[in-house]
Amino acid sequence: MSSRVVVIGGDAAGMSAAAALRRTLSEDAEIVVLERGSWTSYSACGIPYWISGEVAAPEDLVARTAAEHRARGIDLRLGVEATVIDPERRTVTFRSRDGDSGDITYDRLIIASGAEPVRPDLPGIDGTGIYGVQTLADGQALIDGLAAAPRSIVVVGSGYVGLEIAEACVARGFDTTVVDRGPAPLPMVEPLLGAQVAVAMRGRGITLLSSTSATGFALDASGRVMGVRTDGGAIEADLVVLGLGVWARSALAAAAGLPLGEKGGIVVDEHQRVIGFPGIWAAGDCVVTKDRVTGELVHLPLGTHANKQGMVAADSIAADLLGREPQLFFPGVVQTAITKFCSLEISRTGLGEQQARDAGFEPVMVHIETTNFAGYMPGVGIMTVVMVADRPTRRLLGAQIVGAAGAALRIDAAATAIAAGLTVDDVMMLDLAYAPPFSSVWSPIQVAARAIVKELRG
Amino acid sequence: MSSRVVVIGGDAAGMSAAAALRRTLSEDAEIVVLERGSWTSYSACGIPYWISGEVAAPEDLVARTAAEHRARGIDLRLGVEATVIDPERRTVTFRSRDGDSGDITYDRLIIASGAEPVRPDLPGIDGTGIYGVQTLADGQALIDGLAAAPRSIVVVGSGYVGLEIAEACVARGFDTTVVDRGPAPLPMVEPLLGAQVAVAMRGRGITLLSSTSATGFALDASGRVMGVRTDGGAIEADLVVLGLGVWARSALAAAAGLPLGEKGGIVVDEHQRVIGFPGIWAAGDCVVTKDRVTGELVHLPLGTHANKQGMVAADSIAADLLGREPQLFFPGVVQTAITKFCSLEISRTGLGEQQARDAGFEPVMVHIETTNFAGYMPGVGIMTVVMVADRPTRRLLGAQIVGAAGAALRIDAAATAIAAGLTVDDVMMLDLAYAPPFSSVWSPIQVAARAIVKELRG
Repeated sequence: MSSRVVVIGGDAAGMSAAAALRRTLSEDAEIVVLERGSWTSYSACGIPYWISGEVAAPEDLVARTAAEHRARGIDLRLGVEATVIDPERRTVTFRSRDGDSGDITYDRLIIASGAEPVRPDLPGIDGTGIYGVQTLADGQALIDGLAAAPRSIVVVGSGYVGLEIAEACVARGFDTTVVDRGPAPLPMVEPLLGAQVAVAMRGRGITLLSSTSATGFALDASGRVMGVRTDGGAIEADLVVLGLGVWARSALAAAAGLPLGEKGGIVVDEHQRVIGFPGIWAAGDCVVTKDRVTGELVHLPLGTHANKQGMVAADSIAADLLGREPQLFFPGVVQTAITKFCSLEISRTGLGEQQARDAGFEPVMVHIETTNFAGYMPGVGIMTVVMVADRPTRRLLGAQIVGAAGAALRIDAAATAIAAGLTVDDVMMLDLAYAPPFSSVWSPIQVAARAIVKELRG
Repeated sequence: MSSRVVVIGGDAAGMSAAAALRRTLSEDAEIVVLERGSWTSYSACGIPYWISGEVAAPEDLVARTAAEHRARGIDLRLGVEATVIDPERRTVTFRSRDGDSGDITYDRLIIASGAEPVRPDLPGIDGTGIYGVQTLADGQALIDGLAAAPRSIVVVGSGYVGLEIAEACVARGFDTTVVDRGPAPLPMVEPLLGAQVAVAMRGRGITLLSSTSATGFALDASGRVMGVRTDGGAIEADLVVLGLGVWARSALAAAAGLPLGEKGGIVVDEHQRVIGFPGIWAAGDCVVTKDRVTGELVHLPLGTHANKQGMVAADSIAADLLGREPQLFFPGVVQTAITKFCSLEISRTGLGEQQARDAGFEPVMVHIETTNFAGYMPGVGIMTVVMVADRPTRRLLGAQIVGAAGAALRIDAAATAIAAGLTVDDVMMLDLAYAPPFSSVWSPIQVAARAIVKELRG
């Protein structure tokens, strides 16, 4: 049986799917990947560390090169952009950067077209010197922009990427300002934790303008950015980085009539099949995925999901082509995320208090402060844990941590507990690791669970 | 209602129970703690770091002093040793170090008498200069022994304590030998991981004699240790540390006819009630507790269990005295443990391969090697993960990790997954934390789960 699988997009989701299919399908099956850029299988999340200089070159961020993929039998076409998907005829129309164009037919299609930085519709947004950061090409453009030695850099937005880029810029000695419309940075954590991040940012020398919205960009005669206009006044800027999050890159899917959800993410089932479109799968930053706690579809572009979803899509397609049952499914996410700002670690999983209320739960929230390991050991630090549970069912709904070493990876136990549907009573009695250099007898997660149990007792 | 709760033992389990009862019961309830030593609420696990000098003084290891407990209304009697328990008359006979003795009656009794180092019945074992390490008094004796500047130190046994003490001794410049009857150190991890620990120990300058059993101790004319005899020959030793594990300190309980399990641990139910003995509870290092995977009773002396069990016992006694339902129970353990040797982190949870087989499972075991975070980030290291699952049910049974930063706390997600009864398929698809400074897109635990899923596919 000869068949052709076409994959749109050559980064995490697309290439993990292509590689898994190549291992599974027979040699006569064609696997064609259309990638509009020049790179494959790279870590977009690593770009801030390339900008800071901790990572030397974009090649370091590439997990597997185009040559390696080709050597394994994948027909990888770089610089080729898909322009139309026709689900009826099962064709993808493409255009290559050297001028070629045409149609390619598929038996099965995987859309893994990724996401793109939000560029708000503000006056001056198309000026030069205003950068989004999503692809390696974006990263290179920003690095080239920084090489021109701007004096003042303004980062608009304070999500993970905004924060990481701001840290990289200040580490490189640039005068760095973050403009953020929220009351505290990192809107995905509770404001009391964001406030700790704000202190760390200011301590590092970043000018943080909270509760401040960008309203436009001042450009010079050549169209180059000179400043950012905000509702709190004008700020000088020789270079602007947009850290306002991303949208799914799903214009092609939309044009083909595929179902879209939050932030343009393509709606798929747990085998990554596009609902209502036989023969089409989608995976990675271009899809919405189920939140395991609320059941709602959310857009959570992250490499870890993209890799798993790519593998699940490949398994489903192989099952389809080979006439067997799929062996994998993607159960959804619990919105786990971690980052750091200098030595401050930041993590979250599950629902915040307002998210929980919006989803119909009756949230009880506590915050506690504890040491990151035994208080008598040298180098001990502090972490703050926020925990949210559902009052009637006592189920753990969410946890967030900001603090010293361990605050990031500590979140994994909570993420596992949430996925497993554990209550705060269960969490309090888990057999978590204890040894003085690593933890106190009650792990920080359990100190928080105890506080909720006490709170629920009234 | 006036009542008296007597607690035997003033460390983790005993004092956490006493403190919780003090918060719950009315003022006229008496809470009497009999502690044979001079310290309360101290971290026995911290002793190796006191010996190494990382912790300055024994006071630093005390979480709450006798004075603090007394100020809260606990009748704490230091230097008072319980000598007989009479469950019929509900009395404890005691003897104090200043010569007093007598009986005290109780309405409810908590036995929290801890554990004591195994002292094998070998020729010369009672010589001076041979130390066990369990209490602060033991720690002080060892520190005094080291102050006499011995040349050569032999640690017998390679469990957590043996390893930690050996590291402390070599850090202080002593010529240090570890004699271990097993093929690799740390019998609680698979030999392939123990072998990595062996390399680290030898790299640090410790003489490690594996597959070597101590057969006796050479003493000089004054009865002072001069050497350790082994089945591989004699070794010079000016000071010996026993790291052969501990037994429950349960002679009193045994004499009173209480049920004992593995290593002399008192058998209790999930409310820490001694089965068949109304009015008596037990908690901490002197009890056996249920393994949540096998259902078997195991002796796992660890501060984290002691604290929880003390709290559970207090809750149960309060419920009993106040005529309400208990709110807590101790669900058992999954044998989680962590330690480190220099910069090498070591962790385990659940069952090893042989433990799984012994418990009637059909284990499948994999081991994988992966980076501790994104491979392109500076300072990246390696960790090895061993994972065990049950072939027919695909349930995760155990995980063990040895390696660079993160190897210790990474185990918590696996411990949570085991407690929740997750399969390796579930683990593979968990939403665990990802960011380049902390993790790769597949966490080490998930890389191992993937390998098992692949293995199960055959």
